[in-house]
Amino acid sequence: MELIRIGMVGYKFMGKAHSHAYRDLPMFFPHAIKPVMKAICGRDRDAVGQAAQQFGWESCETDWRALVARGDIDLIDINAPSNVHKEIAVAAARAGKHLFCEKPLSVTLPEAREMLKEAERAGVKHMIGFNYRYAPAVQLAKKLVSEGRLGRIYHFRAWFLQDWIIDPQFPLVWRLRKEIAGSGSHGDLGAHLIDLAHYLVGEIQEVIGMSETFVTERPLPDSMTGLSGKGSQDAPKGKVDVDDATLFLARFANGALGSFEASRMAPGHRCTNSFEINGSLGSVKFDFERMNELQVYLTDDDEDIQGFRRVLATDPAHAYMDAWWPPGHTIGYEHTFIHEVLELMNAIREDRQPQPNFADGVRCQEVLEAVERSIAERRWVRMSELSEEELEEGIDR
Amino acid sequence: MELIRIGMVGYKFMGKAHSHAYRDLPMFFPHAIKPVMKAICGRDRDAVGQAAQQFGWESCETDWRALVARGDIDLIDINAPSNVHKEIAVAAARAGKHLFCEKPLSVTLPEAREMLKEAERAGVKHMIGFNYRYAPAVQLAKKLVSEGRLGRIYHFRAWFLQDWIIDPQFPLVWRLRKEIAGSGSHGDLGAHLIDLAHYLVGEIQEVIGMSETFVTERPLPDSMTGLSGKGSQDAPKGKVDVDDATLFLARFANGALGSFEASRMAPGHRCTNSFEINGSLGSVKFDFERMNELQVYLTDDDEDIQGFRRVLATDPAHAYMDAWWPPGHTIGYEHTFIHEVLELMNAIREDRQPQPNFADGVRCQEVLEAVERSIAERRWVRMSELSEEELEEGIDR
Amino acid sequence: MELIRIGMVGYKFMGKAHSHAYRDLPMFFPHAIKPVMKAICGRDRDAVGQAAQQFGWESCETDWRALVARGDIDLIDINAPSNVHKEIAVAAARAGKHLFCEKPLSVTLPEAREMLKEAERAGVKHMIGFNYRYAPAVQLAKKLVSEGRLGRIYHFRAWFLQDWIIDPQFPLVWRLRKEIAGSGSHGDLGAHLIDLAHYLVGEIQEVIGMSETFVTERPLPDSMTGLSGKGSQDAPKGKVDVDDATLFLARFANGALGSFEASRMAPGHRCTNSFEINGSLGSVKFDFERMNELQVYLTDDDEDIQGFRRVLATDPAHAYMDAWWPPGHTIGYEHTFIHEVLELMNAIREDRQPQPNFADGVRCQEVLEAVERSIAERRWVRMSELSEEELEEGIDR
Amino acid sequence: MELIRIGMVGYKFMGKAHSHAYRDLPMFFPHAIKPVMKAICGRDRDAVGQAAQQFGWESCETDWRALVARGDIDLIDINAPSNVHKEIAVAAARAGKHLFCEKPLSVTLPEAREMLKEAERAGVKHMIGFNYRYAPAVQLAKKLVSEGRLGRIYHFRAWFLQDWIIDPQFPLVWRLRKEIAGSGSHGDLGAHLIDLAHYLVGEIQEVIGMSETFVTERPLPDSMTGLSGKGSQDAPKGKVDVDDATLFLARFANGALGSFEASRMAPGHRCTNSFEINGSLGSVKFDFERMNELQVYLTDDDEDIQGFRRVLATDPAHAYMDAWWPPGHTIGYEHTFIHEVLELMNAIREDRQPQPNFADGVRCQEVLEAVERSIAERRWVRMSELSEEELEEGIDR
Repeated sequence: MELIRIGMVGYKFMGKAHSHAYRDLPMFFPHAIKPVMKAICGRDRDAVGQAAQQFGWESCETDWRALVARGDIDLIDINAPSNVHKEIAVAAARAGKHLFCEKPLSVTLPEAREMLKEAERAGVKHMIGFNYRYAPAVQLAKKLVSEGRLGRIYHFRAWFLQDWIIDPQFPLVWRLRKEIAGSGSHGDLGAHLIDLAHYLVGEIQEVIGMSETFVTERPLPDSMTGLSGKGSQDAPKGKVDVDDATLFLARFANGALGSFEASRMAPGHRCTNSFEINGSLGSVKFDFERMNELQVYLTDDDEDIQGFRRVLATDPAHAYMDAWWPPGHTIGYEHTFIHEVLELMNAIREDRQPQPNFADGVRCQEVLEAVERSIAERRWVRMSELSEEELEEGIDR
Repeated sequence: MELIRIGMVGYKFMGKAHSHAYRDLPMFFPHAIKPVMKAICGRDRDAVGQAAQQFGWESCETDWRALVARGDIDLIDINAPSNVHKEIAVAAARAGKHLFCEKPLSVTLPEAREMLKEAERAGVKHMIGFNYRYAPAVQLAKKLVSEGRLGRIYHFRAWFLQDWIIDPQFPLVWRLRKEIAGSGSHGDLGAHLIDLAHYLVGEIQEVIGMSETFVTERPLPDSMTGLSGKGSQDAPKGKVDVDDATLFLARFANGALGSFEASRMAPGHRCTNSFEINGSLGSVKFDFERMNELQVYLTDDDEDIQGFRRVLATDPAHAYMDAWWPPGHTIGYEHTFIHEVLELMNAIREDRQPQPNFADGVRCQEVLEAVERSIAERRWVRMSELSEEELEEGIDR
Repeated sequence: MELIRIGMVGYKFMGKAHSHAYRDLPMFFPHAIKPVMKAICGRDRDAVGQAAQQFGWESCETDWRALVARGDIDLIDINAPSNVHKEIAVAAARAGKHLFCEKPLSVTLPEAREMLKEAERAGVKHMIGFNYRYAPAVQLAKKLVSEGRLGRIYHFRAWFLQDWIIDPQFPLVWRLRKEIAGSGSHGDLGAHLIDLAHYLVGEIQEVIGMSETFVTERPLPDSMTGLSGKGSQDAPKGKVDVDDATLFLARFANGALGSFEASRMAPGHRCTNSFEINGSLGSVKFDFERMNELQVYLTDDDEDIQGFRRVLATDPAHAYMDAWWPPGHTIGYEHTFIHEVLELMNAIREDRQPQPNFADGVRCQEVLEAVERSIAERRWVRMSELSEEELEEGIDR
Repeated sequence: MELIRIGMVGYKFMGKAHSHAYRDLPMFFPHAIKPVMKAICGRDRDAVGQAAQQFGWESCETDWRALVARGDIDLIDINAPSNVHKEIAVAAARAGKHLFCEKPLSVTLPEAREMLKEAERAGVKHMIGFNYRYAPAVQLAKKLVSEGRLGRIYHFRAWFLQDWIIDPQFPLVWRLRKEIAGSGSHGDLGAHLIDLAHYLVGEIQEVIGMSETFVTERPLPDSMTGLSGKGSQDAPKGKVDVDDATLFLARFANGALGSFEASRMAPGHRCTNSFEINGSLGSVKFDFERMNELQVYLTDDDEDIQGFRRVLATDPAHAYMDAWWPPGHTIGYEHTFIHEVLELMNAIREDRQPQPNFADGVRCQEVLEAVERSIAERRWVRMSELSEEELEEGIDR
């Protein structure tokens, strides 16, 4: 079995990124299982039909239930808005389909847990779309940590800053509405940071956070497309009920200290997904706006030439880069999805869960939830509280 | 007519980049003419068959003459080694095919001129692969110059530095052999700088250069693949007869001063294709290793906040970026080819010559030739010398 | 009166920096009151005598009481270890001397408050050594904020990272002992960040922090000089009772969110005193390791050239730079002290309190204290708690 | 003899920088010979008197002949305009004074040679003010080259870019007049690059250049102070007879290729004195606007973490830095002069010629002259031509 037949729900920003990944994978990673772009699903028949043609899907559906019911589909890719993830995922799992779901896994922790349980019960493969892991420079950071080249980890500081809503007239798109998006910068941007923290440093033990909505009312959008939308000065306004910014401190199980910040109100930052790790033997720094680079400092360099090195992670020594272009020829955002899909295909072939999977999605959702609770209750929240509650809930049932 | 059927000669580094461009174009620029990947051609039947399958070509050929003779092909894409460009291009033009040829146009100036003449005579469209023009940050530089926002241009300095042959044991691959490649860093890297100079500043009036081969013997390669190759310490050695580095000074017709440097012996530079322009009102700086960025300085900024701005050319205000991802989500090397192919498709639809075309290739070749002559004769060479010679040659015939 | 006669306590790192400031001031700011380097004081007669000669002091003392008692001294400069600040400052104030005290004002909040009260009661001028305010690039940040060019402030994030104790064999110098230094990175580095926050953003309303000592035992030092010291592997060890790192979140009175981090365990960071401010109209970024630069982003730049500008704050338009060298000729760490002393001299002439003064020192100490309390009690601490307690204490007396 | 009594001619930009160096040396390098600031000389009695007081000179003179005649002076420091260097230096040498002369040594090569001969004949110490050698980061570059850590040198590229005359209304100050300054950017900025090339790479064998004056007329200045001046739109204009920009290519005796560019018409560059060296084993990059940093790349770094390191040259392992502040606390432009004066004092004590000395000044002048000749005659000029001419001239006499 060297083909996997994909059915995808959603066709906008993430739908485009995923579609492209399926298209490009066989060309650059010809030895991987080939994803077959079987069907794409969306509610607007014209729009989804147009997307199918443009992106290269064989067919389209307007009801995700119909998609899930199809016998010629092996894997359901879910990149619809977050509030419908769970229902689709559960149905697909029950139909025996493998799952690839965009982050955050769901808008609430219980739903996320349910998704994991259902996927496990169904015995299918399940992946979650924390694509930033798959930048080669991030892979290099992981390698340096794993090989002990940074020593004992002391600090993880991370910030994901954007500025696309800095204009108070930017409209109230779905990403700014709690019922659909779950949260604002916290779940959208902070979720990525939390996953990177888990990936690079390990378990978080406790957190305390703070958040704010600086612009509390925005024009209602006339139409919504991807991240953007159009509003007018005179348009009626609606209340923004998600956070513009959320910060939190964390203590990791291994003793490291963490600092996290997610904001959509940081002018000049289009997509600054950035982290730094300091360990007893060295440090690394990453900024997604220069995603091909990792800054690396090692304490054992000769004493007269110590300094952060700008490593351009495009050499054959770097993950995935053999498949692309010669050294120095950089790759872009969309490549993270291709590498992610490669991992998904490899995991299916090797009959193991892909990394990251729904368990990682739940772990991330737990931290998101703990931070929100810490904000609401103005106190440190231990991650163990949430798992104990889960246990109790389980017992109660 | 909304389809163009492509036949491509060559299937290695550039062949892969071009193939990918044809694949991706319809997805991201759905309103463009669609290139149909009809046939790919190479001498090694197995290898080209494998490439056809991997890259997505409908069929393959092992003789470029057969390819050119096919009736179901509208355009011939030539990315075979430089020394065979001319023969293929001339035959294709005579067969009425549009042409897309990698740079340099040919290994000698007379051949390049012949290619242009034949293409013009045939009335076909002809494009040359100076892909770096098509980085959005370079497009922004062009826009700033064209709109006069940098004022009168004083300086153009450019350097294309690489380090892939820094190891003296790196083998004598075809790019280091004059009979196949024409020249070394000069024609490979310097050609790109010259084209950017033409594009951004204008005509060059006179030049004087200097070149060097630092490592004069290298192991003969056992096999050659793309840029790399494998040699051993004990392998027999061959003479390197191309330049490792070529530098030259230039005076532009508009009075600007130019400085050019191409080298493959600059450790730490994987692909530093970099230029800076200084004008009476401002400056711009570009480095391909950070290809999404343009540094911009304007003299009329407020006096307390003057400084180079790092513009991340990923906003909707930047060329092509509407077709890709939200601001801050960068693109990579391969995108320059997609934009280039878009220009090719648009030019065909609009019945005009694409930019850059064979005339630009000839202009570039003239400068390459003038620099070589200036090196051989140790004197300034005016570009007018070459055009006068051409005129005379024409008369003589 | 155009002379101020200085008596200084302390002659090591800060003593050297202050001495140099007094020496250089008249040359570069000839219109300022001239500080006369009257006497320097330290316990070790030979060492202080040597320092007097080297730094250019007219005389020396070995007992600070004798210094304070001298009639030919107008101002006492205190840069001895933090635990003796209070006693000296109080005595000097009572003797009618102006005060210039290094930060932190003292090791406890009550002592700091007492110092302020005594200085106010005595009617003398009092300054505290938050020298980083006086980097021209920081002055530019202040100007941009004050003039409203960044709009409403949303975010202040700051980190002061060093790595001088990253080696576990680095000895237990006085800066690592609570009884002398009061705290570790918190009071040493964090204090600077807090002062910058007060200066650039305004009052802090509440805080919550976290701290850690990663290396809990270190060799006892054989000798101590400035920041360094010598230890051996076999040396007896002592307990480190100050923090290696302290982080905290803050909410400002104006609604901005703050994130602070101080660490001495961040490899590759020699002296990264860095902050970023995001406002509704723009952002600025500063890093002391590139102290002549401020990164500035403005949302109203033309849409195709938006980006952080690297402003080299060495133009005549920048604070103090007229006194130094032509644009582009940078200054260094020690210049912050010269500018600071200029402010001190100007304040004395103009009969006003210098900026920052002991009131700023107390404000900073309050935040340091609030953070420590928040760590001990694992809860948010409002700054108003501390002022209410002060009020009550006052009533109790 | 542990004192050297200085007499200085000139009191503006360089006069200030030198004065400060003499003032600061004993404080930071207490073991060096102490320079005694005996007398300063300038034609304007009031102005020089004011400078003497401000800078800390014991006395002043208005006639350099009187200064040279004084018995209480050991060393003459010459930083008057370039066209008077020779006369003063020769007289001072004949009077047995040591010499410290700003660059360029003189405005013509014969004069420069005469200065060297006279200094040698008199047996005095002679230094020339190529201060950029004395940035610790440049010293580090020198160390890496000298120790062979960069291997065989292939490339030296250097550019010294400024923008202080970019405004066409900037007046015709003395630095823009050939009779006083000798040349424009070439002798002012290019001279520094040539000295760095000599210092870091070695002898230059041949050169070819190009230069331009972009703004050929400028308002006559009402007054001139340091680099600046004031002009008005309606002011009468004078002809600019020096170069705004000069570029040249060079071949070094050791086979390295050189590229040099000096311009005062490069917007955004306040003082970009920058060079890069590529060798067979590594590269270094320097930019004076970030003078505390050296970028270092080594080919033998581990293959997954190769990259340019930003070395902040403020560690004890770096030249001079032990005398200053802890690591990470940067120094500025003026420090290069302090280190330069330290070398001067050390050379006097050790009875050797300081580095760089008048011989280096002549070498530099020879290259300046060769470049000018290459421009005038539009041909490569070998450095040996100039030395042969010198020989002939010597024979003719």
